[in-house]
Amino acid sequence: MPYIREKFKNVQAEIIAIGDEILVGQTTDTNSTFIASQLSANGVFVKQKRVIADEEDSITDALNGIHPNTKLVFMTGGLGPTKDDITKRTLMKYFGGELIYHPEVYDHIVKLFAAFNRVPNKMNKEQALLPSSCTPLNNDWGTAPGMRFQKGDTYYFSIPGVPYEAEGVVEHEIIPWINENLQNGTVVHHTLLTQGVPESELAEQLADWENALPLKLKLAYLPSPGIVKLRLSVYEGDKLEAEKLVKREAKKAINILGNVVFGEGNQKLEEIIGLSLLKEKATVSTAESCTGGLIAHILTGVSGCSAYFNGGVVSYSNASKTELLGVDPLTIEKHGAVSKEVAMQMAAGAKKKFKTEYAVATTGVAGPTGGSLEKPVGMVWIAVASPDGVKAKCFYFGKNRKRNIKKAALTSLDLLRREVQKIK
Amino acid sequence: MPYIREKFKNVQAEIIAIGDEILVGQTTDTNSTFIASQLSANGVFVKQKRVIADEEDSITDALNGIHPNTKLVFMTGGLGPTKDDITKRTLMKYFGGELIYHPEVYDHIVKLFAAFNRVPNKMNKEQALLPSSCTPLNNDWGTAPGMRFQKGDTYYFSIPGVPYEAEGVVEHEIIPWINENLQNGTVVHHTLLTQGVPESELAEQLADWENALPLKLKLAYLPSPGIVKLRLSVYEGDKLEAEKLVKREAKKAINILGNVVFGEGNQKLEEIIGLSLLKEKATVSTAESCTGGLIAHILTGVSGCSAYFNGGVVSYSNASKTELLGVDPLTIEKHGAVSKEVAMQMAAGAKKKFKTEYAVATTGVAGPTGGSLEKPVGMVWIAVASPDGVKAKCFYFGKNRKRNIKKAALTSLDLLRREVQKIK
Repeated sequence: MPYIREKFKNVQAEIIAIGDEILVGQTTDTNSTFIASQLSANGVFVKQKRVIADEEDSITDALNGIHPNTKLVFMTGGLGPTKDDITKRTLMKYFGGELIYHPEVYDHIVKLFAAFNRVPNKMNKEQALLPSSCTPLNNDWGTAPGMRFQKGDTYYFSIPGVPYEAEGVVEHEIIPWINENLQNGTVVHHTLLTQGVPESELAEQLADWENALPLKLKLAYLPSPGIVKLRLSVYEGDKLEAEKLVKREAKKAINILGNVVFGEGNQKLEEIIGLSLLKEKATVSTAESCTGGLIAHILTGVSGCSAYFNGGVVSYSNASKTELLGVDPLTIEKHGAVSKEVAMQMAAGAKKKFKTEYAVATTGVAGPTGGSLEKPVGMVWIAVASPDGVKAKCFYFGKNRKRNIKKAALTSLDLLRREVQKIK
Repeated sequence: MPYIREKFKNVQAEIIAIGDEILVGQTTDTNSTFIASQLSANGVFVKQKRVIADEEDSITDALNGIHPNTKLVFMTGGLGPTKDDITKRTLMKYFGGELIYHPEVYDHIVKLFAAFNRVPNKMNKEQALLPSSCTPLNNDWGTAPGMRFQKGDTYYFSIPGVPYEAEGVVEHEIIPWINENLQNGTVVHHTLLTQGVPESELAEQLADWENALPLKLKLAYLPSPGIVKLRLSVYEGDKLEAEKLVKREAKKAINILGNVVFGEGNQKLEEIIGLSLLKEKATVSTAESCTGGLIAHILTGVSGCSAYFNGGVVSYSNASKTELLGVDPLTIEKHGAVSKEVAMQMAAGAKKKFKTEYAVATTGVAGPTGGSLEKPVGMVWIAVASPDGVKAKCFYFGKNRKRNIKKAALTSLDLLRREVQKIK
């Protein structure tokens, strides 16, 4: 379609998330994160996101409020067996047409239910009714099909709100369509992932480099508990040149920061550890007290991890530290459960019990209660056992339980990475 | 302040999240979820949320685009040591004034760094410069203070983007101010939490009740993997009466759905289990294969869980199932690791090893690889051991690894809840 290609240089998109549940703060809108990341990766520029109520006026207002340069509009939510009505009716008023029955959509719903040994009901059957003004989009992952509308030279996509359905429709139905029909602009991102150094210190170390960056290169610091991402972006010019530019500058930043950078792009710490272990043909196990299973959960999020992850123990009680990990009860008595000695024995115990080359252990005060002057809430001992022996280090991760559990788990993984990659 | 009270009947709010990282889909905006839930709980109505780029034009456009009836505007992000500049400069242009140095803010920054054994740098010092048009808001949790501006009879809050800092400022600085200064409207929500029944089936069961609901009562189905929430809302009339109304109708729905409802409001499944175990003075342990530690992680998210959670094993390898949980290797050989027999032996083994009254075990094919015709990806055996014996049940949670791990963990917790609460 050369006509469309011509018209769609530097495509601008907007996202509208429909849902009272998001407005009242009961649900976090993760769909638009996914949509935005997919668009961004495919050279489409996201101008704005909005969250609005699922009611006719709000939907119509939002559609009328789209920026005149926006060529792609993504609406998520407001579909599904119990809330189809408002969204479909409103879209039909806006784009015209009437409801028509799509037997192929209903067939799909019947098959979907059969796989779970269930039968669709009347509400599910009504999901096969779609406005005649739309092109249906396959939703292999749920009962509500997506819809594509057109008004002027702008395309509107209505996507189900359930995250894995939204992801399926965007990835398999919409992104290929965009790449086939539109000529996207230059959007190049390159991200460096760092662990263990606060934002302001990174910025200080990078100050000279940052001041010398070419004007069209944008740098952003994205802090989160335990990890700070550095994102380099170029939004103009030739794509290949832009890619070369960000890569060149990323390399300079890595040279300055050294081992603090644990990865690049969308890599995850647990994936990097997995690849390193596979390369070394080594295995790992965990012994978790304060992190309560989070390290094991993160490691086992990686498909294929059974090749290098043998297992772990969550030893919340002293008895389980002794019974399952072989920690000496006298050590616990003398130094306390939160101590260097216990952390080291836990790591050594897991390594032995699970017959692995590496093991990582945590013991700390997650809080909010149970802290003391000597061992305050947020204090965590982390130990890593490797073929070279056992090392331990003490950290202070602050008073917030959820946050210090997460920071302790990520820091443990980074210490493990450093051991596996033999970084001094 | 009776003047303000008079003017602020039924307060309407909008949220503006500032950040390229959200627009490109690198970060999910969880701050506005927290802000919205706090506002909602305090009778403030959220009209709209927006996400915009951190650049002057976008911020100014968004401020100019605020609905005329909106009285409270929350801006999150765009603050912090490396990105203070644009936001502060733009807000100063919009609200007037000049940058002035706040020694008390700098003192706080110095103390905060001292606690982590660090010294603030030049960038951190600049965070103590604030527009003279704002009232600073304490941020005990980070270096960037919040700011309150006023224009006409609308109040604007600028809040740091780091989630735990944003939460602290909203909870401790802003909400008390709103409750002291504004007369909020009626917003009453009541939520029922259900596990294990799909949205369309719940809706079918509730159809008669739903059709008979009073007009001013709004019902919403909020599905997520494993859990469907039913939210009843009233936005008008007397607050006490509205509360009575939603409670009365919630009770009727519970009578229809029975044990499918595991809790109400903001309760979490793991908290309910914890309370039930405490009441019974009983303890629990876990034996996880495919869920890889997620059940233990969820259980240990609850403060005080060490009173009833002794620990768990993540037994990813067959050897660890045998070695740590006492699963008979012949059983694994005969039935395979993913089987009813192995799940039951895992649960019984954890119960014995950790000396607990209850234990929950999972073994399944998380995928995406490793499935077979007989044991497809997503098939999971869950066993619960209790003082009455061991029960096991087989589930099919679909092909998506992250999703079936989550569903398996939540379903395990619900089966555990049913055992602990002695539900037939």
